[in-house]
Amino acid sequence: MLNFTFYNPTRIIFGKGTIDQVGSQCKRFSTRVLLHYGGGSIKKNGVYDEVVSSLNKEGIEFVELSGVVPNPRLSKVLEGIEIVRRENISFILAVGGGSVIDSAKAIAFGSLADGEHLWEDYFMNPENSIKKALPVGVVLTIPASGSESSTSLVITDERSNLKRAIKSEQVIPQFAIMDPETNYSLPDYQTACGAADILAHLMERYFTNELHNDLSDELLEGAMRNVLAHAPLALKHPADYKYRSELMWTGTLAHNDLFDRGRVADWASHAIEHELSGAYDIAHGAGLSIIFPAWMRYVYKRNIDRFVQFAIRVCSVNLSLDDKDAVVESAIDRLELFYRSLGLPVRLTDAGIGTEKIDLMSKNAMINKETIGNFVKLTEDDVRKILRLAL
Amino acid sequence: MLNFTFYNPTRIIFGKGTIDQVGSQCKRFSTRVLLHYGGGSIKKNGVYDEVVSSLNKEGIEFVELSGVVPNPRLSKVLEGIEIVRRENISFILAVGGGSVIDSAKAIAFGSLADGEHLWEDYFMNPENSIKKALPVGVVLTIPASGSESSTSLVITDERSNLKRAIKSEQVIPQFAIMDPETNYSLPDYQTACGAADILAHLMERYFTNELHNDLSDELLEGAMRNVLAHAPLALKHPADYKYRSELMWTGTLAHNDLFDRGRVADWASHAIEHELSGAYDIAHGAGLSIIFPAWMRYVYKRNIDRFVQFAIRVCSVNLSLDDKDAVVESAIDRLELFYRSLGLPVRLTDAGIGTEKIDLMSKNAMINKETIGNFVKLTEDDVRKILRLAL
Repeated sequence: MLNFTFYNPTRIIFGKGTIDQVGSQCKRFSTRVLLHYGGGSIKKNGVYDEVVSSLNKEGIEFVELSGVVPNPRLSKVLEGIEIVRRENISFILAVGGGSVIDSAKAIAFGSLADGEHLWEDYFMNPENSIKKALPVGVVLTIPASGSESSTSLVITDERSNLKRAIKSEQVIPQFAIMDPETNYSLPDYQTACGAADILAHLMERYFTNELHNDLSDELLEGAMRNVLAHAPLALKHPADYKYRSELMWTGTLAHNDLFDRGRVADWASHAIEHELSGAYDIAHGAGLSIIFPAWMRYVYKRNIDRFVQFAIRVCSVNLSLDDKDAVVESAIDRLELFYRSLGLPVRLTDAGIGTEKIDLMSKNAMINKETIGNFVKLTEDDVRKILRLAL
Repeated sequence: MLNFTFYNPTRIIFGKGTIDQVGSQCKRFSTRVLLHYGGGSIKKNGVYDEVVSSLNKEGIEFVELSGVVPNPRLSKVLEGIEIVRRENISFILAVGGGSVIDSAKAIAFGSLADGEHLWEDYFMNPENSIKKALPVGVVLTIPASGSESSTSLVITDERSNLKRAIKSEQVIPQFAIMDPETNYSLPDYQTACGAADILAHLMERYFTNELHNDLSDELLEGAMRNVLAHAPLALKHPADYKYRSELMWTGTLAHNDLFDRGRVADWASHAIEHELSGAYDIAHGAGLSIIFPAWMRYVYKRNIDRFVQFAIRVCSVNLSLDDKDAVVESAIDRLELFYRSLGLPVRLTDAGIGTEKIDLMSKNAMINKETIGNFVKLTEDDVRKILRLAL
């Protein structure tokens, strides 16, 4: 087990009817709030009205900025920063899923950042650490990104179609209000993409070269099994609180950094997927269900026993260890079957994507980087081969 | 899954050579510190010198209060409060295990509490919530109590031999420095008692009447299996970092309240054990290894399937479900074998304790309470029967 630190002060407020606490939670930090959200689904499902009513009840003044899209854009972030500065706002409230939260985090630190080159200074230069940020709060409506209590955010610069992630303790949300009932009205495809994202956050942390990190293995395996069990049930019974609550809570714990302490996680599949959804604007979860099986097939021989453990303990493969390759192959096949059962693509061609941008994506993945990933350090040529395996 | 909140802001700093960060961590809060510790083992194993050197390096003034004993005493807490007030101290640094941390937490809130009747106002009246406390930091040297990032503390009033627990967000430590190498010199019995305490924290949370709380089940089961696997290895190889680090990290996560969100935990065995170690001053972990099997035998029929799940997934019992009582019996027998393999008592008579105080302990357990425990709400008569089952 490697040395580590862990610090996650997000106050989680989970359950039915919890959205009416948003006003009092905001009030602990500010009475001038940016209310940030997406395309209006929160107006259809009633969440918007609940939030506004709670803010009004506590006498909180707010300015609205809506229109955040999946793979959230830099231009919207810059718009938010301008509003915050002009309106003297000191708290960002994100109501939505990962895209809204990530956009809110970017506004939160961008508003206090020096200089005019936010993209170049931070996103293209992630070593330039974020020193301060306005506090952020979350009302989560889509379980997927884990951004509601994570250090990370991902933004796309639509000028270059580059999608980049940065991490900082400064942007961990102060609170996250999570009512699984808000998930009842999610389209099936969004539920499926969310489950794939949650599972990916767990798998990225699972595939490590660090030995003897058994508790983390147990926690990750348990959480993975939980996604495999509950995602199909949530699709089958979309208004069943049991299944929605399991997915929602697992989504948070999959990405608050607790489950990979003492090890180096991989993150190559996420990096490759960022190129894919940067280039094609497909859903992040659908990109992950395409990339992950290909990545697994490409790298598993580096430490086959790690994949055998995954096969046995997560995928319930009971083939003899006489043929470990068959054990791993069976596990990856089962993973693909799981994705397909949720209606997700597992090949680029399933998503209507061909070879045309493989070279571009492989090249973009390496901008400012020598290699990507940690389980195997991948070069541009490796990325190209993984994308071809995914065809 | 029940509605819940989760908030745990302790900064965990885990690994080899981390104690030299204690000065800089304290300095974030104060330069006048109470250095609180136990019987002097930290002077033998070098931890004391490391701590003092780091405090000196950062220019932190400190007053020492040592002599905390297992089952920490109210009189020591009152002594600490007097020192804090007299010396104008604003930070409590606990160096040791759960007893030292709990004593530090009591000093931290007691120093700011009104009135002169700390025991009566708070410990005997746990509904009287703690409003404020001085910040506490921890250098942990014994994995067991989980107090390094928990809301709870347990103090014994030696006038009455009553041992009482209280909980408050106000006393969650600000940081916990955890170097597993400090555990190498622990006596075997203390390692064993620590493991029993960790396992008990997980079992208390596992045995619930709340249905459909699957992620928590997975996390608790994984952590329990981890204790069952690593405690014997740590005893066999006391200076092996792998095993010590697993136990230490599991000990923290077993008690930071993350693993039982969405359910009501039991805590009857802890309450009964508090009477036992209050009356006889035996180690808390040894008390738990006596009480838990007896409690299980007494209550399991309330929800036999919960115990069957424990038997299969934690104790690897593979008997046919045709006879669920046999499945559960086998699991409890295996648990007792585990305790015995660590050198722990599983009967009162193993610890030289007879029937003489059973009535007194059963009566004391019910002071200010109608019932104890949640899986089954136990009366005084139930407690008496459980203690007799443990003979």
